[in-house]
Amino acid sequence: MQNDKRLGKRTIIFPSKPKIISACSLVVPEEYNGPLQKYFVNKVQDDTMNQKTYEKAERKMLTKVIDGAISARQVKDTDVQMLIGGDLLNQIISTSFSARETQIPLLGVYSACSTMSESLAVGAMAVDGGYASTVACGTVSHFSSAERQYRTPLEQGSQRPAVSQWTVTGAGCSVISSAGSGPAITRATFGKVIDFGVTDVNNMGAAMAPACADTLQAFFQDTNASPKDYDMILSGDLGYLGSELLCDLLLDRNIDITKNHRDCGVLIYPKDTDKFQGGSGAGCSASVFNSYIYKKLMQKRIKKMLFLATGALLSTTSSMQGETIPGISHLVEIECGKKEEV
Amino acid sequence: MQNDKRLGKRTIIFPSKPKIISACSLVVPEEYNGPLQKYFVNKVQDDTMNQKTYEKAERKMLTKVIDGAISARQVKDTDVQMLIGGDLLNQIISTSFSARETQIPLLGVYSACSTMSESLAVGAMAVDGGYASTVACGTVSHFSSAERQYRTPLEQGSQRPAVSQWTVTGAGCSVISSAGSGPAITRATFGKVIDFGVTDVNNMGAAMAPACADTLQAFFQDTNASPKDYDMILSGDLGYLGSELLCDLLLDRNIDITKNHRDCGVLIYPKDTDKFQGGSGAGCSASVFNSYIYKKLMQKRIKKMLFLATGALLSTTSSMQGETIPGISHLVEIECGKKEEV
Repeated sequence: MQNDKRLGKRTIIFPSKPKIISACSLVVPEEYNGPLQKYFVNKVQDDTMNQKTYEKAERKMLTKVIDGAISARQVKDTDVQMLIGGDLLNQIISTSFSARETQIPLLGVYSACSTMSESLAVGAMAVDGGYASTVACGTVSHFSSAERQYRTPLEQGSQRPAVSQWTVTGAGCSVISSAGSGPAITRATFGKVIDFGVTDVNNMGAAMAPACADTLQAFFQDTNASPKDYDMILSGDLGYLGSELLCDLLLDRNIDITKNHRDCGVLIYPKDTDKFQGGSGAGCSASVFNSYIYKKLMQKRIKKMLFLATGALLSTTSSMQGETIPGISHLVEIECGKKEEV
Repeated sequence: MQNDKRLGKRTIIFPSKPKIISACSLVVPEEYNGPLQKYFVNKVQDDTMNQKTYEKAERKMLTKVIDGAISARQVKDTDVQMLIGGDLLNQIISTSFSARETQIPLLGVYSACSTMSESLAVGAMAVDGGYASTVACGTVSHFSSAERQYRTPLEQGSQRPAVSQWTVTGAGCSVISSAGSGPAITRATFGKVIDFGVTDVNNMGAAMAPACADTLQAFFQDTNASPKDYDMILSGDLGYLGSELLCDLLLDRNIDITKNHRDCGVLIYPKDTDKFQGGSGAGCSASVFNSYIYKKLMQKRIKKMLFLATGALLSTTSSMQGETIPGISHLVEIECGKKEEV
């Protein structure tokens, strides 16, 4: 094949190194009062965003970070040609209704809480391939809309089990461009749907860890890279338990990521709160990546990293029909641009 | 920008002309007893597919057409590197669970009933860009799973209004490759989310027609092409009423597609049945395109066409919260390969 941008079985390369030229996140008190407080710029006191429903609040959050990331970009004279994103609500309505506001052509994607890294991978493909000069990639989640859609009515006040995670109320958006400066997306690996037979809808970390391990192993096999080549290997929202499982699964395959592995779900909340295993939701990795991580990349405190958001592919229908919960995890490799490149 | 594959404001071009090297569809009696009878190869008598639920039947249909399209492809020694698809069920579970079976890396997309053309556009981008040599693009819908998710329990036996359409029980999958022969995907235009304020959840044609008109107009502006350059301009599932609206909206903009416009929702069922305005659902355009249309392209009875599947971006939650129903439509241009190219 001419113009081959494949590496090994599943990894793709972006020779033009598309840059993440801006990033924007937004969170509410539950999140901005945590350990990443000083990295969250857009803090919203009221999680209803002055809207009548949580679902309307959720889409307003997404619209705000898309607008924020686009207005913060350096290349002012370039249109944003594609909006790439999805969310957890049925029929990704947060994303669709946000795209109605922004009027950017929408490429709707879905991989549950792996949507942020899927969007970045597809966005890098669009820019590196020459199909767009600038794209926006974003996603969102809201504790109160997710809880009532996936689990129980908020008013019921159900007790949460110890393996549970807390859906982050937050949004994040990255703008990727062929021009401008910023951390570059250099390679990506799309995830397979991996099922280890987990059926506990409260234990998402255990459902997603095997998929994350599979994608990471595939990437290392394809590229001959190893964990020590990276300052950080960042998973999406495995939480404490899922992170342990990920490291164990990989140690069994002779891959040791224990030193440089971090997880957005672990980073976002203080330990020993009512968040139990940590944060989850598409907005978890989206808000952490587009604040704390992006800042570290821009400061070159992180020079080279892997970002694997992680998704659990269930619906209330699939669970009620007795299905197990498969997971998926899409990987992007990110390097902060060297001086001569930016 | 080097390597620019953009044309005008929104259209992208695929210079390597990725080929649709195989296609597979599957329908049940409601569909194969209609006007396209002789074009449907895989006819399934039992719409439960021997499964316990309609949702499980739906995903089995999708798995079958993916397997069918892959095993029918001419380039046997090439892996399929990406499965690109989505469906109407919450959290696209039909696609996710199908991908669990096929174990092809999944790029989940969602644009309601526009998913077939979105998948083809993203697939063409992946192949033309060199990120994959072969990809499979598929989607599915099932009358009985859609009806109970979006409208009313089947057992209720609600009367259907005259503006309603009938969700097609069917699936379709296309395999796109850089090698091999078949109709080529030459250009694409991603749709914007367009909202004309329709609120009737039974009148999907009216909700989607404005989005289809917008994308088509953008494509003609970008390319300087006109309707007479095409043997067929095929919309997804506007039905009779939506098709009339589409033609009227475009006539108002001095674009006359009345001579060569066809609609999958109109083609699939006989007129004057209980299907009222015709077929709908992601499986409508997927099954019609991957049977009747693909055959006509292979026979060179259609030499050049535009395919715009059309999606209505609602959920039960958005409608119950008083939202209008925006639409989206993604366009792909398809040419049957000339003799020297195949």
